Amino acid sequence: MKKNAIIGQSGGPTAAINATLSGVVRELKKSDKIDTVYGMHNGIEGFMKEEFCNLSKLLFTENDFVRLEKTPAAALGSCRLKLPSETSEKAEDIEMYNKIFEILDRNNIGYFFYIGGNDSMDTIRKLSVYAKKLNSDIRFVGVPKTIDNDLACTDHTPGYGSAAKYVATSLAEILRDTSVYKLKAVTIVEIMGRDAGWLTASAALARPDLVYLPEVDFSIDEFLEDIKAEFEKKPNVVVAVSEGIRDKDGRYISEDGSKTDAFGHKQLSGTGRVLESILKEKLGCKARTVELSILQRCAAHIGSGTDIEESVKIGSFGARLALEGETGCMATFVRTSTKPYSCNCQKADLENVANVVRKVPREFINERGNHVTTECIEWIRPLVLGESIPEFENGLPVQFII
Amino acid sequence: MKKNAIIGQSGGPTAAINATLSGVVRELKKSDKIDTVYGMHNGIEGFMKEEFCNLSKLLFTENDFVRLEKTPAAALGSCRLKLPSETSEKAEDIEMYNKIFEILDRNNIGYFFYIGGNDSMDTIRKLSVYAKKLNSDIRFVGVPKTIDNDLACTDHTPGYGSAAKYVATSLAEILRDTSVYKLKAVTIVEIMGRDAGWLTASAALARPDLVYLPEVDFSIDEFLEDIKAEFEKKPNVVVAVSEGIRDKDGRYISEDGSKTDAFGHKQLSGTGRVLESILKEKLGCKARTVELSILQRCAAHIGSGTDIEESVKIGSFGARLALEGETGCMATFVRTSTKPYSCNCQKADLENVANVVRKVPREFINERGNHVTTECIEWIRPLVLGESIPEFENGLPVQFII
Repeated sequence: MKKNAIIGQSGGPTAAINATLSGVVRELKKSDKIDTVYGMHNGIEGFMKEEFCNLSKLLFTENDFVRLEKTPAAALGSCRLKLPSETSEKAEDIEMYNKIFEILDRNNIGYFFYIGGNDSMDTIRKLSVYAKKLNSDIRFVGVPKTIDNDLACTDHTPGYGSAAKYVATSLAEILRDTSVYKLKAVTIVEIMGRDAGWLTASAALARPDLVYLPEVDFSIDEFLEDIKAEFEKKPNVVVAVSEGIRDKDGRYISEDGSKTDAFGHKQLSGTGRVLESILKEKLGCKARTVELSILQRCAAHIGSGTDIEESVKIGSFGARLALEGETGCMATFVRTSTKPYSCNCQKADLENVANVVRKVPREFINERGNHVTTECIEWIRPLVLGESIPEFENGLPVQFII
Repeated sequence: MKKNAIIGQSGGPTAAINATLSGVVRELKKSDKIDTVYGMHNGIEGFMKEEFCNLSKLLFTENDFVRLEKTPAAALGSCRLKLPSETSEKAEDIEMYNKIFEILDRNNIGYFFYIGGNDSMDTIRKLSVYAKKLNSDIRFVGVPKTIDNDLACTDHTPGYGSAAKYVATSLAEILRDTSVYKLKAVTIVEIMGRDAGWLTASAALARPDLVYLPEVDFSIDEFLEDIKAEFEKKPNVVVAVSEGIRDKDGRYISEDGSKTDAFGHKQLSGTGRVLESILKEKLGCKARTVELSILQRCAAHIGSGTDIEESVKIGSFGARLALEGETGCMATFVRTSTKPYSCNCQKADLENVANVVRKVPREFINERGNHVTTECIEWIRPLVLGESIPEFENGLPVQFII
């Protein structure tokens, strides 16, 4: 008997999460085991309210799929809802799980896919464990996404390559922009990644002068020395810095700049702004901050061709895993070679994935801790190759909106 | 007798100023009146030190020109140096002008081009006036550039279309990004343009919820009302705001948020951050700011095809003006039709250009002052049509560096 499938997206937006959604749907539509492919709006939160859409109908032509693949952010919407522990004995928690499985059964759903980061992989892990408890044969498969590239058990994550390409391209442009004047000035580019420095490391492809990742303790004194050393070489210094850098006591540098706002409230300032203040104070030089902000995760207009292609591929692979009977697993990338680049899809047990943060290895960072190594750059490079550029209409990118 | 020509770039970087440089050189190299085409490094500042490069040699193959056209920021470098008044009777000022003309004569320069904004057009005006005083037959021609689109006597300025395309594309992506959660939240996108709102107006192409330009007095009370009205319709509100909005007394809104930094210094905060604080305080909603910062002026990876093409064209036109004997003028655009779009090059007397700011006309802004009109959007639209995308190598845009 044919079963229905359902797909959700969760966590922060990326430029590639819709490519993965497309990949899952492409594969499911080919299978004779599947009746209808549903999407859940706003992840598990919308699922609880049975806010479904019919992806089998919405994604119909090849053009639909291609447009979806080049549209940023989660087309199905997202949520931050965490499921309670699957071993909880609280009545309300048990009721929640029972409700989920009641909805699944009533809608004849045999396959459940969740595309997301760490928390989302934990959600799918919990559901698959609960399914075993209930002797349910519903298949639960996770497909990763995160610009942070910090998930365990996979070489890299879908979405990272596109964010990295945007970051490196923007850095290349900022390096041109900052070079036009001869005045001594520091431009600090603040990049996302609170715990892992992968995205900040990608800035190194454009060769900024200094790169600081959260994997190494940050010293303000050494930072000032680094800037002074750069000023010996040239007037315009460009620094890429992770929002998550911390001092040797583990205190975020962004906590240093406790400002009061217009209403006298203490505000956490951005890391870049704090460093900017320190430079102005200690070196008396011009300094400014560029925060790449949410642009770095949603700039699908210059996606990585490799990333978008791989994101579709891993989605399809995840669908095949479930169709072949697998559950409680996540689709992964296994890199077999960097030069020439070669990468396959595999699976990992979700028990090994959830709640682990994969950081940039120390050997990818130079000894001083103010740049990454050539090996690191060459590791990242294949992930940003190729340009994924959407169709433009009337001057703007065409988006597929569900 | 053949003469040499020299070209300088000045003012803030744009994605199209090198396209104009290319256009000037392309035309000059075709002329039998020209011997060598020089570039001055860092505008008039480098000129005074005779820091020249040989553009005739540097720009040799068609590929050189095309790469230059797609490289952002001023390839020759820029400066902010203003010349003294041409009527000044101070000895040092007279000496400065005499030195300029001595350098020009000694280098057999017959044609002087300056690509820039308002201040740069004033520089070229002063030089042309001084030339008359000295009975010099050196030709001085200005070619405009500015992302602000605020120069008088021209329909629009080279560089505006590319910045506008980047702003509108980023807004379209931010609108996708912000739509994924159901939580009430305001995203404020702060856009450059201290006195004229043209660039902020371009955000309207992507249909954000609210758009505030500096041309209309900004009222915080009305802003809060506008946000509340949007919240009645949807949870995620996206606001495009010019950095230069002012209250009815002409006070910059950014002055409201006088913060103290880590060292107790008063800091001028950005307009977006001030509005963000106000929203959190008064409405208790989530709010965040995206500053498009220098990215909006240097993002050549998604230039406007129309802008880059026109920027080359107006550069060539400026060169022809000088070769035909014109001086003291600026090359301009005259739009003959919006639908279908049609635009020619003309010239304007620099006396009418310098030190005038061309603002967005009131009739391009809605009555409430919180959005632009359809007419405004349709006026901007042709300027962002077509995509100018550079060649990529190893995942990054190829840049032409002088």
